[in-house]
Amino acid sequence: MIEEIGRRAREASYVLRQSTGSMRAAALNRMAEGLEFAVPDLLDANEADMGQAAGEGITGALIDRLRLDEKRVAAMANGLRNVAALPDPVGRETGGWSLYNGVRLHRVRVPLGVVAVIYEARPNVTADAAGLCIRSGNAVILRGSSYALRSNTEISAALRRGLVEAGLPADGVQLLEDTSRDGAKALMQATEWIDLLVPRGGPGLIAAIQADATVPTVIDGAGNCHVYVDRAADLHKALDIVINAKVQRPGVCNSAETLLVHQDVAGEFLMSAATALREEGVELRGDEASRVIVPDIGEAGEEDWSTEYLDLIMAVRVVPDLETAIDHVRAYGTGHTEAIVTDDRVAADRFVSGIDTAVVAVNASTRFTDGEEFGFGAEIGNSTQKLHVRGPMGLESLTSERYVLYGDGQVR
Amino acid sequence: MIEEIGRRAREASYVLRQSTGSMRAAALNRMAEGLEFAVPDLLDANEADMGQAAGEGITGALIDRLRLDEKRVAAMANGLRNVAALPDPVGRETGGWSLYNGVRLHRVRVPLGVVAVIYEARPNVTADAAGLCIRSGNAVILRGSSYALRSNTEISAALRRGLVEAGLPADGVQLLEDTSRDGAKALMQATEWIDLLVPRGGPGLIAAIQADATVPTVIDGAGNCHVYVDRAADLHKALDIVINAKVQRPGVCNSAETLLVHQDVAGEFLMSAATALREEGVELRGDEASRVIVPDIGEAGEEDWSTEYLDLIMAVRVVPDLETAIDHVRAYGTGHTEAIVTDDRVAADRFVSGIDTAVVAVNASTRFTDGEEFGFGAEIGNSTQKLHVRGPMGLESLTSERYVLYGDGQVR
Repeated sequence: MIEEIGRRAREASYVLRQSTGSMRAAALNRMAEGLEFAVPDLLDANEADMGQAAGEGITGALIDRLRLDEKRVAAMANGLRNVAALPDPVGRETGGWSLYNGVRLHRVRVPLGVVAVIYEARPNVTADAAGLCIRSGNAVILRGSSYALRSNTEISAALRRGLVEAGLPADGVQLLEDTSRDGAKALMQATEWIDLLVPRGGPGLIAAIQADATVPTVIDGAGNCHVYVDRAADLHKALDIVINAKVQRPGVCNSAETLLVHQDVAGEFLMSAATALREEGVELRGDEASRVIVPDIGEAGEEDWSTEYLDLIMAVRVVPDLETAIDHVRAYGTGHTEAIVTDDRVAADRFVSGIDTAVVAVNASTRFTDGEEFGFGAEIGNSTQKLHVRGPMGLESLTSERYVLYGDGQVR
Repeated sequence: MIEEIGRRAREASYVLRQSTGSMRAAALNRMAEGLEFAVPDLLDANEADMGQAAGEGITGALIDRLRLDEKRVAAMANGLRNVAALPDPVGRETGGWSLYNGVRLHRVRVPLGVVAVIYEARPNVTADAAGLCIRSGNAVILRGSSYALRSNTEISAALRRGLVEAGLPADGVQLLEDTSRDGAKALMQATEWIDLLVPRGGPGLIAAIQADATVPTVIDGAGNCHVYVDRAADLHKALDIVINAKVQRPGVCNSAETLLVHQDVAGEFLMSAATALREEGVELRGDEASRVIVPDIGEAGEEDWSTEYLDLIMAVRVVPDLETAIDHVRAYGTGHTEAIVTDDRVAADRFVSGIDTAVVAVNASTRFTDGEEFGFGAEIGNSTQKLHVRGPMGLESLTSERYVLYGDGQVR
């Protein structure tokens, strides 16, 4: 089955890679109209999904993510229109020169080919991921959650109609109906058909990818992000940044999990930070030095330094110097986002060059690591690996650079 | 053991990533001097390696690759000096803009960290790979062949002395003394320590990588390259290109394996091409249509279309049109290099956009796919995968782009 789907995706990718950017942009606009036209069917299908999920005891945030209403469908459609309006990454020349013998060399962005996305019970991802892949000239194979199968099937059908109306092959977007683990594993190993697999999910999915995937992947991994308040920090800004990084949206990967404070400012800063954070409902867990300053907080152990809480909990450590802060981040960071608050340019430079992470923020919140914030218009994920792409993945990350040589009969 | 080596490499990588480009360039010059100073020891060690290899029955091209002499050591040293003189890829800004809130974003090239290279019994690769990795701010772990262990040990020691003389850590270059398969496998799975593994070897190594590697890799795969002679080809140029692509160095991956000829010019072209190729000692294997034109050549079967001969053999097929040529390349090409000979701009464009390969050459030999030819100064391999880098891998391919944000207290 994956063979059949893969073959169709490959065929569609040949047409898409030769289509013009304006054709693909038009397709996204048709796909948006397709969604709007299908609202009644979408909401019916979603109601059935919601009913089944509720029957299986799914509640809270999960069921909220699964839910569709007219406003959310409109948001999906507008998302497609926004991506349609983004500059075309395909065909962009990223370098060009002449060889010694007159051969002209062009380095040009081309689509990857076939992109697969595995994701959780969020129907909007179906439209978002499809839009980004089609805009960048790729065919996409979508593998959503069983909880959202009916919703995804309707969304996918609407998107496929949009493609056809724009003169592009319907198989540019395919939804995998097999939502079993075996189905996911088959996808992870379809090396002949898949050029990139983007897993969007929790630690369980990432572990499965690392164990089973043989296709190329970009890992959207954990974010154990730190904020380091240097001795030369503006403590008012530091407080704003720490609070924002921790509490504005604690459940996402770019929120901060550990606060590191230079000992020279720890006495002054930690008291006010602890008060402000606790007012926001944050539970603090500190090392010995921080618990001398703020005695009534919990104790942080080794486990805390390596935990991505994704919750209103924050670990705190007082460090004797910048180098210790860097060593701590090197030991426990996950390569996502790290922040330093300092007015000392030399300290900032040391932190920036000393820490190997996709994004490093100087005097700004960790929460800016995001495709929309970066101005990419949309993102298909956030890479915590080093190869191919780091940080927010926009349209460009769905392309690669290849070389075209133009000669006049040159030989070696 | 890989743990200890990995930890040392990681520590060295922290120093290297914070070193200046001129320091790293100076280190390569010291490494070159180190090699020149060590010539007597190098040649002694190499003689012992050669003796052992000869005793084990190794002959021909293999033993020639293993051999070192003063000229070859000088070439290694000069290679290092050339790489020292290349522009520093580290710290290069590849993009920069301001976010809506005034946060300045910089996209900057940084070293990958720790690069591992697995290679065959060619001692020069020890110096070449180390030079490229150090120049680009990475620590390197080298795993050569058991046949070259004594030579590699001396080369590695000389390179390490050069690093230390330049004030950089010796562990920037480490040689794995364990040349067993288990040792290679341990390296392929050292995900904590290795940021990129570059395998340089034959199909056996590539298969082992695909089966066992869990670290990020860039595959330097097979080159089943085609030359397509279009009906609008200048047949004199076509002949030059076909002969060059096939015979100039048949044992390398960018040589051509299959000749595709448009039926409108097949009658005229194939007769002269067959004569010229056979004068060069090339055995031809043709499809039915080509054997009507040149009756006395062998028969090409399905297997021939997918074989990388790496030898003076060439498969020949007459195609009815450009689309059939494109379909053939899509079915049998390995994403390395494909060439079209044509004076028809539209045909060239269709071929270029229709074929998904790292390098596509219009009116030029496939043999130009090479780091030196492209002007990269040197290459650590040639990527046939799509993620991260395609085609010749220069210094830039040993870096990745990350983001640095400079704010003034901005929060979301």
